[in-house]
Amino acid sequence: MTVDATRVIAELRALDERSGGERVAWTEICERERTGFADALRAEVPAVEYDRDEAGNAWFVLPGVGPAAARTVVVGSHLDCVPGGGWLDGCLGVLAGAEVLRAAARIEERATLMLVDWADEEGARFGHSLLGSSAVCGLFDYGRAAQLVDEDGVTLPVALAAHGVDIERMAEARSRIDGLDAYVELHIEQGPVLDEAELPAAAVDGCLGVRRHELRFTGQAVHAGATPMRLRHDPVQALAIFAGELRALAVEHDGLATIGTLRAEPQTPTAVPGQVRLSTDIRHHTLDGLESLQAAAEHAAEAAATAAGCTLHSQELWSIDPIHFDTALVERAASLVPEGTTLTSGPLHDAAAVSRAGVPTVMVFARTSGGVSHSREEDARDEDLVVAIDAFGTLVAGLLVQGSAT
Amino acid sequence: MTVDATRVIAELRALDERSGGERVAWTEICERERTGFADALRAEVPAVEYDRDEAGNAWFVLPGVGPAAARTVVVGSHLDCVPGGGWLDGCLGVLAGAEVLRAAARIEERATLMLVDWADEEGARFGHSLLGSSAVCGLFDYGRAAQLVDEDGVTLPVALAAHGVDIERMAEARSRIDGLDAYVELHIEQGPVLDEAELPAAAVDGCLGVRRHELRFTGQAVHAGATPMRLRHDPVQALAIFAGELRALAVEHDGLATIGTLRAEPQTPTAVPGQVRLSTDIRHHTLDGLESLQAAAEHAAEAAATAAGCTLHSQELWSIDPIHFDTALVERAASLVPEGTTLTSGPLHDAAAVSRAGVPTVMVFARTSGGVSHSREEDARDEDLVVAIDAFGTLVAGLLVQGSAT
Repeated sequence: MTVDATRVIAELRALDERSGGERVAWTEICERERTGFADALRAEVPAVEYDRDEAGNAWFVLPGVGPAAARTVVVGSHLDCVPGGGWLDGCLGVLAGAEVLRAAARIEERATLMLVDWADEEGARFGHSLLGSSAVCGLFDYGRAAQLVDEDGVTLPVALAAHGVDIERMAEARSRIDGLDAYVELHIEQGPVLDEAELPAAAVDGCLGVRRHELRFTGQAVHAGATPMRLRHDPVQALAIFAGELRALAVEHDGLATIGTLRAEPQTPTAVPGQVRLSTDIRHHTLDGLESLQAAAEHAAEAAATAAGCTLHSQELWSIDPIHFDTALVERAASLVPEGTTLTSGPLHDAAAVSRAGVPTVMVFARTSGGVSHSREEDARDEDLVVAIDAFGTLVAGLLVQGSAT
Repeated sequence: MTVDATRVIAELRALDERSGGERVAWTEICERERTGFADALRAEVPAVEYDRDEAGNAWFVLPGVGPAAARTVVVGSHLDCVPGGGWLDGCLGVLAGAEVLRAAARIEERATLMLVDWADEEGARFGHSLLGSSAVCGLFDYGRAAQLVDEDGVTLPVALAAHGVDIERMAEARSRIDGLDAYVELHIEQGPVLDEAELPAAAVDGCLGVRRHELRFTGQAVHAGATPMRLRHDPVQALAIFAGELRALAVEHDGLATIGTLRAEPQTPTAVPGQVRLSTDIRHHTLDGLESLQAAAEHAAEAAATAAGCTLHSQELWSIDPIHFDTALVERAASLVPEGTTLTSGPLHDAAAVSRAGVPTVMVFARTSGGVSHSREEDARDEDLVVAIDAFGTLVAGLLVQGSAT
């Protein structure tokens, strides 16, 4: 089974030209690209059975042929991206998955192959990552999700309904996880590790755990010219103290901590803001480390609020424990990349949810130029993408033909 | 000449109920209130001549009668407010001015009285305070103002044109300053000084100088999970270092420094922001102190950018040197308030621009409950407003009847 990596790269560039890195989940641009992708693939491979599940995930099923037909191998990733996102994050795995599906359709005897285009991996609009895959994998907290609100005050249930997803019925998508034998996802690394080591691709053995919160420091909005410094309750000062402390804690704990969203209210140059809203995203490769860093961050936020005469409100947006992928699949993937490179993913992926649900899972990473992602500067060299796409295709072909990897 | 302070307070409350503190300049709500105010006053006092000048300021002229008619006394303030503003900031001076005008119409011999409703005092949408009064007073920098852009990317010239103001012709409003003999503005203090001293009103002897800038710390937008802390160029860290240092510098210099607007871009929880934008507003009562504090702040911002591996871009939004009002008018106003209280204004006012243009100027302040302004919590006790409105009315009546104060 041969995959055409050059075609995948050309299709990625065309997708990026059409959407300009604005394929934010539950927007018109994202919906247009997901529908267009499905229409084109179904036209080209008529044997594919297509539908969307109750959580908005799009499934393309190429039924198996022969003795292996009872087994099911799944490939997938996501077409949505962060605002101002790049041309590879998510799309690479879906477009390479489509190419693998086209190639598999030419194999005479094979297991069943599914391609899934997961809905809302990024959580860019509502702060909830892996929305579609969480629903399928039984990791979705409906009560909490129903409370989520975007920057314009639109609730998650309203945004979902506008795209045909009924939050009350999302749990029904869970049946999709039954009977899956392997899940393989190709993605760019989105970090600098392969780039620094000058290696084109890697097998991925798991994902860092994540704790994500929205914090609000509330002080008192007063006129910028009339209030002595000593009488202020300034949430910008609370933020300043907290941000410095958070960085020091991340370094000390050998973890990662990021303030990704940040906004003062009201936005007027002549007033001390009444409130500063921000998100914290904390990651670690061990559960102990993750919980310890998160606890220290919460303590630091409380202390910063107190020091600035403000109050703190914190709400969990999302969390996941560290994930370890399937050992046998990781070994097989490592055997297909130069130098048998293996690493742990810092970013989270839909593969983490699938693995948590008990499906043997592995990922393949492609080197990312400069390690930059979630930005228009995101890039990868064609020759590195070819190595990664070929390794991904060979891995899936083996699973389809030779039998279970586990 | 007797003014009805109770009526002024009732009209202020009605205005607030209609507009909900959202009278931001160059928006529909603000325009509706300014037009409605003009229509009502002209209907009640037919002798008033009304027009708008080339900068959007509304002028109500009550022609003088008798020997004093050649002299012109001006009262005024502004109807616009910051987003989520209160019921007194600006409106108090315009609605009390209208009451003074109604009362003056009943005097048989008097100087000419003008009431001006200044356009865009707050600069809430474009960061340029005193827009209308600056144009009249010859302090408006057209080249720089033409570059200003609001949060939605609308330029100032486009927003002005939508409200009938041609930025190319604003300079023509300058003729309005000719031949004015006195300018008196009533306003709330917007600070805690009178409230702490339990005094209802004060004469104001001048305004702090202001330097206002927009700063941008630019780093590199990277994935929150994939980039080791040591490899980040995080503009939130630059902001954190700068905000702490700025506060310390303000205290050290006995001045004021405020970060009023603050926003990271992109706003996504899973990415280190590529950029943080903020405004700095620095105030001091002496020119030396102002320039020294601004220079130290600029140095601190550069150092913070460097420490976080970011770059800094700074643009001046607006500035004004410290203002000293007319000594004779200040003395006369002080004689009309309890204990002869006099203070210097921290907030800036249209009176500052008028004073800079050479017109003898004074202000009267009313006590502000808790010193809170630029917020829905802004408030003042009725009895304090009555004292301040009466002092303002008596001061203006004296100027209209008894002759020039200077």
